[in-house]
Amino acid sequence: MTFSPLLMHLIDSLRCMPGIGRKSAQRIAFHLLERDREGARELSAALAESVQGIGHCGRCRMLTEHETCNICAATGRDISLLCAVESPADVMAVEDATGYRGLYFVLMGHLSPLDGIGPDELGMSALESRLGDGTVNELIIATNPTVEGDATAHYLADLAGQHNVQASRIAHGVPLGGELEYVDGGTLSHAFFGRRVVD
Amino acid sequence: MTFSPLLMHLIDSLRCMPGIGRKSAQRIAFHLLERDREGARELSAALAESVQGIGHCGRCRMLTEHETCNICAATGRDISLLCAVESPADVMAVEDATGYRGLYFVLMGHLSPLDGIGPDELGMSALESRLGDGTVNELIIATNPTVEGDATAHYLADLAGQHNVQASRIAHGVPLGGELEYVDGGTLSHAFFGRRVVD
Repeated sequence: MTFSPLLMHLIDSLRCMPGIGRKSAQRIAFHLLERDREGARELSAALAESVQGIGHCGRCRMLTEHETCNICAATGRDISLLCAVESPADVMAVEDATGYRGLYFVLMGHLSPLDGIGPDELGMSALESRLGDGTVNELIIATNPTVEGDATAHYLADLAGQHNVQASRIAHGVPLGGELEYVDGGTLSHAFFGRRVVD
Repeated sequence: MTFSPLLMHLIDSLRCMPGIGRKSAQRIAFHLLERDREGARELSAALAESVQGIGHCGRCRMLTEHETCNICAATGRDISLLCAVESPADVMAVEDATGYRGLYFVLMGHLSPLDGIGPDELGMSALESRLGDGTVNELIIATNPTVEGDATAHYLADLAGQHNVQASRIAHGVPLGGELEYVDGGTLSHAFFGRRVVD
């Protein structure tokens, strides 16, 4: 015994979202149909509009409905600095936490040959032409400190080297408020070998 | 700094779903736009169709796009048995696990005066007319064993009594495979006082 066809179809469709299994999809479907049809209608419209309208920024690959995103389009940012990140959320994190006023390049993923994600999928040729046009002095590599993020960072550093652009990577170490005793060994070892002279 | 207006609108709209906060909504939006636009398009259509098409079964209040749900419309079920449950998922659970061949009444919630959910919101008048039409011999109350579920169960039992319909409630006790030592006190006390003569 199953639900009616339309309800089953809704539950199946909800499962296209990451982290949503059968039970969550059921719960969401019942909630929307019982308590929030207005929200469901709005979500439906927002999804359709977004799929239709949102593409990538022509310069940095950020998700945007405009031709260039508002960071690339902004005046007064330092075009000699370029920061490579894995996802749009990382751009937000850097913007919100740091005073960085340079530009970004959003890879939309990391190198992962097993999943078929190579340099082409990450828009490396677009990055290369930006590194080659003579405006960029430093490429700040802010990929995640994971195996794939590290591999991507190496690739990016090589690319920068080929175009005589200085590459740097954001520091990895003990997070503020963390205690040495409870930090994992890899992080501590990173922090130890990455020590800096106190001046 | 925020995302582009359309992307922000999508993220906000995704938050109408229960259990989805800001971070999850972001993650879902990026996933759909980056990796599964087809899924997003389908979800949008399914939501629109469902909101438009799915209503309640005229007899049992189950969610369905037809006038009566397929359980109420089925022939060969025992119309003298009526089982009251809180949600459509509970109907599925009872159907899948038990050999029950009677009909259902889906309350779509439980009594919760603080949230403004009283007998009217649970369709009690429709239930009353079914209890009063002389076909139902037993009302099986299968609301959840929570405070609100218990209150609803009492209300339902009263209603059945008024129409001279026998009311029963599904047993609460130690779940199969559970160990007495680790079962909570309330459940164990329930199981103890609900003991049955072994024959």
